[in-house]
Amino acid sequence: MAILPAPVQNLINALARLPGIGPKTASRLAFYLLRSSDDLGEQLARALTELKSATGTCSICYNITLAGQEHCEICANPQRADGTICVVEEPMDVLAMERTGGFNGRYHVLQGVLSPIEGIGPDDLKIRQLVERVRNGEAKEIILATNPSMEGDATALYLRQQLLSYPVRVTRLARGLPVGSDLEYADQNTLLRALAGRQEIS
Amino acid sequence: MAILPAPVQNLINALARLPGIGPKTASRLAFYLLRSSDDLGEQLARALTELKSATGTCSICYNITLAGQEHCEICANPQRADGTICVVEEPMDVLAMERTGGFNGRYHVLQGVLSPIEGIGPDDLKIRQLVERVRNGEAKEIILATNPSMEGDATALYLRQQLLSYPVRVTRLARGLPVGSDLEYADQNTLLRALAGRQEIS
Repeated sequence: MAILPAPVQNLINALARLPGIGPKTASRLAFYLLRSSDDLGEQLARALTELKSATGTCSICYNITLAGQEHCEICANPQRADGTICVVEEPMDVLAMERTGGFNGRYHVLQGVLSPIEGIGPDDLKIRQLVERVRNGEAKEIILATNPSMEGDATALYLRQQLLSYPVRVTRLARGLPVGSDLEYADQNTLLRALAGRQEIS
Repeated sequence: MAILPAPVQNLINALARLPGIGPKTASRLAFYLLRSSDDLGEQLARALTELKSATGTCSICYNITLAGQEHCEICANPQRADGTICVVEEPMDVLAMERTGGFNGRYHVLQGVLSPIEGIGPDDLKIRQLVERVRNGEAKEIILATNPSMEGDATALYLRQQLLSYPVRVTRLARGLPVGSDLEYADQNTLLRALAGRQEIS
């Protein structure tokens, strides 16, 4: 016999499908929503319903944009520097780059990484579209900002090869010790990369 | 200039209002929902909308029940033992008790705890209704299963006093060392309660 009424159990099941949310957290959230007297549940439901219907994809860089807008705010901004395209995996990565305040160029969102295990090949990503942009002379430099993971590295390597025949500089974000970290606790690979990439103090 | 389109930002804001979900987790969830091609977002939205409209409160024990049903499944179940009422703070606690499989009686959900700091007094809880059930001779034993916290203890003490004049046994869940724990890491209070509540090995 079910102890919880179906509407509560349904919400718990749906919440537990979110990444990083297990059944315990899901039921805590469901009971919180049940108890909350304000409009939080309704606000969430509305935002969820709107999420996909009110958003689209930028036809240039494949970042998220408002539905009906062909170009995202960054591609449409004439004040952004042309000539440099930062290639990232996900829209979230654009956000991370923007937060640094250190990049004023254009973006290209691959919408994933190459992953043979998950069956994601070059055609599943926006790679052809990136090559197209390079062929059109849109960039002098391509910054490969895929994650410093195995998949991210493999994707960067693949992109490097695809762009070999074009007169474009292809760079990759530096590896090294994170700012504020401790040498003692750095993992072997990071320390090795930091050593290999050491720079002259000027 | 906003980097994220409003629909995405709205969802992040709503998610970040949930307990234990900060802005970073909220945006990770939002982007996951955006990317997920299946109906997860819709399923969540539907479950959220239904949550309050499709649920009600049991008129006997104040646990959650389906809208339109006067009694919850436990109160309506003739196979549950009458005579013992387990008093808990929240519907979630009923679930926790049920999972043990060790209790076959009835419940009473207070819908909170006494908390002078938050301005929650006896009239804000289902205390009067519990006393009414005892007065009607519904129980021979009341198990006070409020949390072993300051508020839970204060509430249990208050309930004990309210029930003094009735011929009913009032018990409280045992304190002691959690099963599988380590004496070395037990906090002082828990160890003190475990010592005070020590039992004869038979």
